[in-house]
Amino acid sequence: MFVKHGMNSQFTLLGSAKHCMLASSAVFRRQQFLIRTLGGYTDQNHLKRMQQTKAMSGTAFEADSENILRAITPNLDPSKHKGQAGKIAVIGGCREYTGAPYFAAISALKIGADLSHVFCTKDAASVIKSYSPELIVHPILEESYSIRDEDKPSISGKVLAEVNKWMERFDCLVVGPGLGRDPFLLDCVREIMKHARQSNVPIVIDGDGLFLVTDNLDLVSDYPLAVLTPNVNEYKRLVEKVLNCKVDDHDAHEQLLSLAKGIGSVTILRKEKSDLISDGETVKSVSIYGSPRRCGGQGDILSGRQFIYLYYSIFFFTCVAVFLSWARQRLSAAEGDLPISKINPTVLGCIAGSALMRKAASLAFQNKKRSTLTSDIIECLGKSLEDICPAI
Amino acid sequence: MFVKHGMNSQFTLLGSAKHCMLASSAVFRRQQFLIRTLGGYTDQNHLKRMQQTKAMSGTAFEADSENILRAITPNLDPSKHKGQAGKIAVIGGCREYTGAPYFAAISALKIGADLSHVFCTKDAASVIKSYSPELIVHPILEESYSIRDEDKPSISGKVLAEVNKWMERFDCLVVGPGLGRDPFLLDCVREIMKHARQSNVPIVIDGDGLFLVTDNLDLVSDYPLAVLTPNVNEYKRLVEKVLNCKVDDHDAHEQLLSLAKGIGSVTILRKEKSDLISDGETVKSVSIYGSPRRCGGQGDILSGRQFIYLYYSIFFFTCVAVFLSWARQRLSAAEGDLPISKINPTVLGCIAGSALMRKAASLAFQNKKRSTLTSDIIECLGKSLEDICPAI
Repeated sequence: MFVKHGMNSQFTLLGSAKHCMLASSAVFRRQQFLIRTLGGYTDQNHLKRMQQTKAMSGTAFEADSENILRAITPNLDPSKHKGQAGKIAVIGGCREYTGAPYFAAISALKIGADLSHVFCTKDAASVIKSYSPELIVHPILEESYSIRDEDKPSISGKVLAEVNKWMERFDCLVVGPGLGRDPFLLDCVREIMKHARQSNVPIVIDGDGLFLVTDNLDLVSDYPLAVLTPNVNEYKRLVEKVLNCKVDDHDAHEQLLSLAKGIGSVTILRKEKSDLISDGETVKSVSIYGSPRRCGGQGDILSGRQFIYLYYSIFFFTCVAVFLSWARQRLSAAEGDLPISKINPTVLGCIAGSALMRKAASLAFQNKKRSTLTSDIIECLGKSLEDICPAI
Repeated sequence: MFVKHGMNSQFTLLGSAKHCMLASSAVFRRQQFLIRTLGGYTDQNHLKRMQQTKAMSGTAFEADSENILRAITPNLDPSKHKGQAGKIAVIGGCREYTGAPYFAAISALKIGADLSHVFCTKDAASVIKSYSPELIVHPILEESYSIRDEDKPSISGKVLAEVNKWMERFDCLVVGPGLGRDPFLLDCVREIMKHARQSNVPIVIDGDGLFLVTDNLDLVSDYPLAVLTPNVNEYKRLVEKVLNCKVDDHDAHEQLLSLAKGIGSVTILRKEKSDLISDGETVKSVSIYGSPRRCGGQGDILSGRQFIYLYYSIFFFTCVAVFLSWARQRLSAAEGDLPISKINPTVLGCIAGSALMRKAASLAFQNKKRSTLTSDIIECLGKSLEDICPAI
């Protein structure tokens, strides 16, 4: 079942490949006429790109992402108290990696979450703390190199007890950024994920978290509050493991649907040129801010660098985590009265997170061009959200 | 053999000292006429400076550095995935020095490389990490003070194994910034360089890396992917060691050529008022952005401070490393069809790196004058590249 959510991008593609041929369709001709009338940009390269996007996204429908983002972003209400706009916890950060968990945690705050925690190793904690005093950093995870084998069970117990103390306060857990692949650390994270699931806390999984999950699918299978956000290689591994076949870009939406179903009720956000999202029931795509029109008319394509940050960004999933938390709050408060009420909150979170991330990357690129770094995109999150959904 | 590459600086000097006398040549008179016609800046001081530059660069031809930079900088292509725009590793950073490896690594990202790693000592790692979450910092090197003699062989093995795990992913290694001179650490770096060479990974060597190489010339001799970027003193040591004579500024290009040949197929970038580059076959010079015309007519000479950063900068070689990686990619993709195909990619990397560095330093100086710091120049790298080679 594919649900159409509307259109908000001038170049967004509509319809099924089976029912309309892009270049010859009446819709396309009408679009071309409008673009010409409005002085818009169109040429053979663009047509080619549209066809490529079409091939990539198949019959999935473009989500009305800006309206979804507006619908789930909470109003600023002085009667609310600290924490009500979202408490996010990032599980990640080890001796080797400290940037990724920092980016993940700080971007939650930049979007508007109230509190952002990081659970990481002792080595990583002081560094992550030094990046920003805004974060709450818990130096509690351990890697094999720093402990003796005989101490592992007791340390594992202590780690779990410490995280569990906080668990029910969190609106969403982000597992994976800069986690590394130390076996003892991953064992502890596995237990943390089990506990999050028991407590009904949503889990967004990326990076080394996906490495862990791909080898332990039972951690997320049949858990509707789990979201996986794989990049190209992580997606490939998942498809091979679950569907026992190769990635098929010509039937991308069907394969994504099968994968989400195959794992069992999880939501997957496939980070690509057009982001594809499926919970095993529906498939949506988000392509906005990927078009030249959206890039301030400055050129024909976005940069490779921008695309890198757009699709593999190490804080993408935090945007998803925050919006997923807000979507759950919003749906629960509205009791089924909203136009978005029929959509899975995990899918809503992915759509809104994807749209915001793409806009912020686009904005950062306009300013910094090839020099665009992750920090620059994070600095654009606030303005991007404000542009789509003004605070007042 | 000297190859002429064209001209792109109004004040650039052409020709061989044997064939044309600067002040009386028809070319020079024509230049003077053009400068006067265009309202350009020229006076006795400038003439003197040109003569000094001539004496410094001898018969080397000014490289067409801006066009070379444009030719090797990759197009921004959304189909590329993370890492394809370059993965650089910096080997450096010890208890004493942390700034140099940071500047080296971050400037690679600011130019547009995708990933920048630092391999340093444990003491240095947490500090370098704390400068920026954008870098991947590996705390794996060891200095003598922190280990026992009997543990050295096993620790050395571990260090090498850890670096080797990553080696083939890197497009270029930068060896030297903030490396220090601890004998055990330098022993490990020597092994790392041997492995890089076996893996055919280009190596750009500066600072304490040059100290190591000057005493161990076999590390780079007959390795065409090695680039040395000596400053005045480092150059002096190399000349004395290899050519067994003093530095001769009146025959600078011939001496540089002999030095590069003498070491065997390496490329040397001699950082001076005009940068001189040789691979033992050709000599090129890069003088742009050092002239008052290029400095917005704000003065007659650049400041001593600027010259320091211009010519001895501790991240110069990272620019070279990134452009060298891009040049190799570009040449390999084009299969000999480009105008630059006949030039050694190490020389191309040096020319482009030198030009960008000089422009960034010039731009930073315009803004900050005497206050110009290395960080200010790094902040100008993106705009400088954008000015020469727009992203879109």
